Amino acid sequence: MTEKKKTTIVLFSGDYDKAMAAYIIANGAAAYDHEVTIFHTFWGLNALRKNEKALVKKGFIEKMFGKMMPRGADKMGLSKMNFAGFGPKMIKDVMKKHNAMSLPQLIELAQEQEVKLVACTMTMDLLGLQKEELLDNIEYAGVAAYLADAEEGNVNLFI
Amino acid sequence: MTEKKKTTIVLFSGDYDKAMAAYIIANGAAAYDHEVTIFHTFWGLNALRKNEKALVKKGFIEKMFGKMMPRGADKMGLSKMNFAGFGPKMIKDVMKKHNAMSLPQLIELAQEQEVKLVACTMTMDLLGLQKEELLDNIEYAGVAAYLADAEEGNVNLFI
Amino acid sequence: MTEKKKTTIVLFSGDYDKAMAAYIIANGAAAYDHEVTIFHTFWGLNALRKNEKALVKKGFIEKMFGKMMPRGADKMGLSKMNFAGFGPKMIKDVMKKHNAMSLPQLIELAQEQEVKLVACTMTMDLLGLQKEELLDNIEYAGVAAYLADAEEGNVNLFI
Repeated sequence: MTEKKKTTIVLFSGDYDKAMAAYIIANGAAAYDHEVTIFHTFWGLNALRKNEKALVKKGFIEKMFGKMMPRGADKMGLSKMNFAGFGPKMIKDVMKKHNAMSLPQLIELAQEQEVKLVACTMTMDLLGLQKEELLDNIEYAGVAAYLADAEEGNVNLFI
Repeated sequence: MTEKKKTTIVLFSGDYDKAMAAYIIANGAAAYDHEVTIFHTFWGLNALRKNEKALVKKGFIEKMFGKMMPRGADKMGLSKMNFAGFGPKMIKDVMKKHNAMSLPQLIELAQEQEVKLVACTMTMDLLGLQKEELLDNIEYAGVAAYLADAEEGNVNLFI
Repeated sequence: MTEKKKTTIVLFSGDYDKAMAAYIIANGAAAYDHEVTIFHTFWGLNALRKNEKALVKKGFIEKMFGKMMPRGADKMGLSKMNFAGFGPKMIKDVMKKHNAMSLPQLIELAQEQEVKLVACTMTMDLLGLQKEELLDNIEYAGVAAYLADAEEGNVNLFI
């Protein structure tokens, strides 16, 4: 019996294009039969937010963060040429034209392929995000769990 | 016979300074006798663009992307302190003063050292970039080829 | 006798939040008994700057870079939602509320845990930074030394 190869990705970025790159690599690695983990931290947590508003109690600063950050993968901006939100529309138009998968579809595919999606509990605290606001069927962990995966990883990326 | 060590870099960023860092590490690793691959995806593809305009047919959005993105390594901006294009001039002045290699020179050196320069075909499609617009003597591949290299890699970076 | 696992991080970014992520991972890995190196290059060097002004002689461009770049970890901006400096205050307020360590505290902890903090000499030259301006008890090296560490690394990240 040979052990599975492992890929781990820290998704720090809250940019649509960077999250796409992370999920394309993750889905590729899963198809390649790797054990794959995406550890969402800081702005990368926004990729896991649900579209709808969750009824949760928050302090003032946490509410502000909640309002200012994009609610879910589909609302994230681009790292380059965002043009006040016009850039993402261009990218999405061109993706549709080329039959490329959107970010929400890439995330769904990752879940189907059993990519382990992890939300960093420490930064959830900092940004005031609660479990009710994030996608179902994800895991919650801290940096120690990430390192335990990564130290066995063949491919470890920070995106 | 010992196998060569491997370094792979995903160059996602279209920033002059980040591309410099990628190529400095790549050239260092090649000098260190690693087998090195730089996989250019998204905005990182701009580092491979030729200066001159290529005669290719494009759709409307693809033409717009083509116009808005920098044509080649020398025209890329900085990730920090770009100051509407003044930052890159400052960096280039200071690089000349210290006899540091410019990004186009670093790319040329990488080609001489047989660093494998790969353009990601999926994002070329998305951004409407065609082979005629990119440097000669590069390879074209997708995420599967990247992963095949990376899973054997000693050093794998996402820049 | 088993060899220690190794983690290396290239800290390229000069953003407060990205530097935090780098130091949290580094401190976690050190607690996990890894040998850890953070190689500070380009804007990441700013995390190592002392608060006070050092008396050093510089050329004109180097002086300008020195003035425009943040003097030390505590003065760095955010990669997202910086809002002309208001964002870092929000993050710092929320960190205090959650008893999270500030970046200067994380750097201190890293030094206590014997994380090897390295300043990239080539980019120090480019940005006109001198040893007198950087923290005490750090090391100075170039890309070859980084690669020697990274090629033995279990976890190698570029942040």
